Amino acid sequence: MSAPTAEQLAERRRRAVDALPGLGANGLLVTTLVNVRYLTGFTGSNGAFVLAADGTGTFLTDGRYRHQATDEVPGLDHVITRDLLGEAAERMTGEWACETHTLSVDTHTRLTDAGVATVPAERMVEGLREVKDYGEIDTLRRACQISVEALRGLLAGPLAGRTEIEVARDLESRMLDLGAEAIAFETILASGPNSAIPHHSPTDRLLQTGDLVKADFGARVDGYHADCTRTVVLGPADDWQREIHAAVQASQAAGVDALREDAAVAASDEAARQVLDDAGWLEYFTTGLGHGVGLQIHEDPFISHRHAGRLASRTTLTMEPGIYVPGRGGVRIEDTVLVTEPSTGGAPEVLTMMTTDLLEIA
Amino acid sequence: MSAPTAEQLAERRRRAVDALPGLGANGLLVTTLVNVRYLTGFTGSNGAFVLAADGTGTFLTDGRYRHQATDEVPGLDHVITRDLLGEAAERMTGEWACETHTLSVDTHTRLTDAGVATVPAERMVEGLREVKDYGEIDTLRRACQISVEALRGLLAGPLAGRTEIEVARDLESRMLDLGAEAIAFETILASGPNSAIPHHSPTDRLLQTGDLVKADFGARVDGYHADCTRTVVLGPADDWQREIHAAVQASQAAGVDALREDAAVAASDEAARQVLDDAGWLEYFTTGLGHGVGLQIHEDPFISHRHAGRLASRTTLTMEPGIYVPGRGGVRIEDTVLVTEPSTGGAPEVLTMMTTDLLEIA
Repeated sequence: MSAPTAEQLAERRRRAVDALPGLGANGLLVTTLVNVRYLTGFTGSNGAFVLAADGTGTFLTDGRYRHQATDEVPGLDHVITRDLLGEAAERMTGEWACETHTLSVDTHTRLTDAGVATVPAERMVEGLREVKDYGEIDTLRRACQISVEALRGLLAGPLAGRTEIEVARDLESRMLDLGAEAIAFETILASGPNSAIPHHSPTDRLLQTGDLVKADFGARVDGYHADCTRTVVLGPADDWQREIHAAVQASQAAGVDALREDAAVAASDEAARQVLDDAGWLEYFTTGLGHGVGLQIHEDPFISHRHAGRLASRTTLTMEPGIYVPGRGGVRIEDTVLVTEPSTGGAPEVLTMMTTDLLEIA
Repeated sequence: MSAPTAEQLAERRRRAVDALPGLGANGLLVTTLVNVRYLTGFTGSNGAFVLAADGTGTFLTDGRYRHQATDEVPGLDHVITRDLLGEAAERMTGEWACETHTLSVDTHTRLTDAGVATVPAERMVEGLREVKDYGEIDTLRRACQISVEALRGLLAGPLAGRTEIEVARDLESRMLDLGAEAIAFETILASGPNSAIPHHSPTDRLLQTGDLVKADFGARVDGYHADCTRTVVLGPADDWQREIHAAVQASQAAGVDALREDAAVAASDEAARQVLDDAGWLEYFTTGLGHGVGLQIHEDPFISHRHAGRLASRTTLTMEPGIYVPGRGGVRIEDTVLVTEPSTGGAPEVLTMMTTDLLEIA
């Protein structure tokens, strides 16, 4: 366990308070559970956080979590109650920022009925979460190392003759053996024609020589998610498999290379797409190119040509182009990548460090 | 895989259409993903469903799920789009029921900006989901059988000297080996003093003779969740362990027995609580007594003295009283229970069928 320190949590809250004037609010009501965790340290399933513009904060949860809150949430007043919203509303006067992107209409109605005037929080905490502190980066690095070490172990053994479900479970067991607290998401293990399905649930299909085998998987460590995809071939690769793999590999490298401080988010989308287009395969790429990753497996920023922003250092994102040929097979290569600080040279740091070359597996 | 049949899905939608006049709406917009799954069969991560009062329905998802939707969603028009809400809004005229308990304020604003007048859906689909069809009951029964069979296997081997994390993983592996598609939730495995923590995450603590060991766990099968808790003792039980276990066992039996068609939901709460109170342990019971279980691990109805409703047959719920003595240890016993039809005699059917007696384990 490496929970955030009291100082790290206080620093996160300072950044939130600094952002409040931009919203024109007297404070922020945090109801999105992952944002509550980020700002308070609380890992339970029911909590809220009231942060006033003067920096004072109140954490609210129910009786099940009284002791856990004592352990996890330092430096804040605690309120233990069945009625989180009612107690929170009593602490909010004037205009208050609320997380209207997740807050339900019914809960919002309760707040306004209680006399609270709300303004949208505009994904403010999600914005803060894009830039990781050093503790978060260490944890993400560990989750990514566990993930690729598990995959290396899996690929050392034979795969042909086992089912997709068996191989997926093997990979998951290896991550847990290596110290993951859980898997980061349900493993995609897709073989042969199934590899053409971007989001495929493992089946009883037996892996066989000649198959492309795509594994999209990751470990979770202390709440932080790794996200990695590799596609291998069982036995010697055919020419068409080599061709699409090479195109995806080049696209992925170009996309990763564009993940630099102050670069446009859209530039990495453009860079990866251009390589697929030049190779004549763009029409077979049907998903998004990547997303932020941290306390959530999918979080801001989402890579897209429509994203108008620029990358900050200490942001962690995936880069995951693919080519999916329906009925035949597909290739995806994905890394979790850290945007580095200029003082380190500026090159992106791949956290899921493992070759992207096409591996031919027994 | 036993997905719902086209007929079962059509019947669910008929029940939804029948409930619409009560809401005073021209149709229902379903945006809660688990409700979309229930009414359409879709198991992906992004979908919406527009159901008009005349019974016509449109299913919406994005391009990633084009083929999956073809496989899973029979008998409905499909719209493949990046803008689910915009496309849905075009199909909604006049007053329309929306799931305001989960719909975000921002999404609701988009609908009203598009000219849609909304009324609350009042958890209508959650209400329909309380009563399971026979396919759902079969699936839940299978999930529960896998769960208890896994626990029996675990308890046949030695536990002392292993960590909570190791034992939790062993139990989870057994469920997956027996055919679970996933675990239903993160396993609670709590030993010794940790057993006094109602929601405890497994640690590196070594199980040792004299410990109470509480396992709260379940298998997921085809999207349906089992939920079961047993508390055992390692080696011969002390008197205080026997005493609290006996009180919880009697409380749980009384609570289960009250889960009958047309009985007040609050009556099962009262029955279980009364036994704990008579035994002098009520103050050490700090959680809720139970909840519906199905496509969600926690769903309507929630057992409480405040619940004003009555139980329908074919509802599945947990019954899970406990006694938690801080610093010392605790006992919880939980079953997943089916409220039966009077034609079967009316006695509740315990789906997680396994002794609730105190087991002394090597």
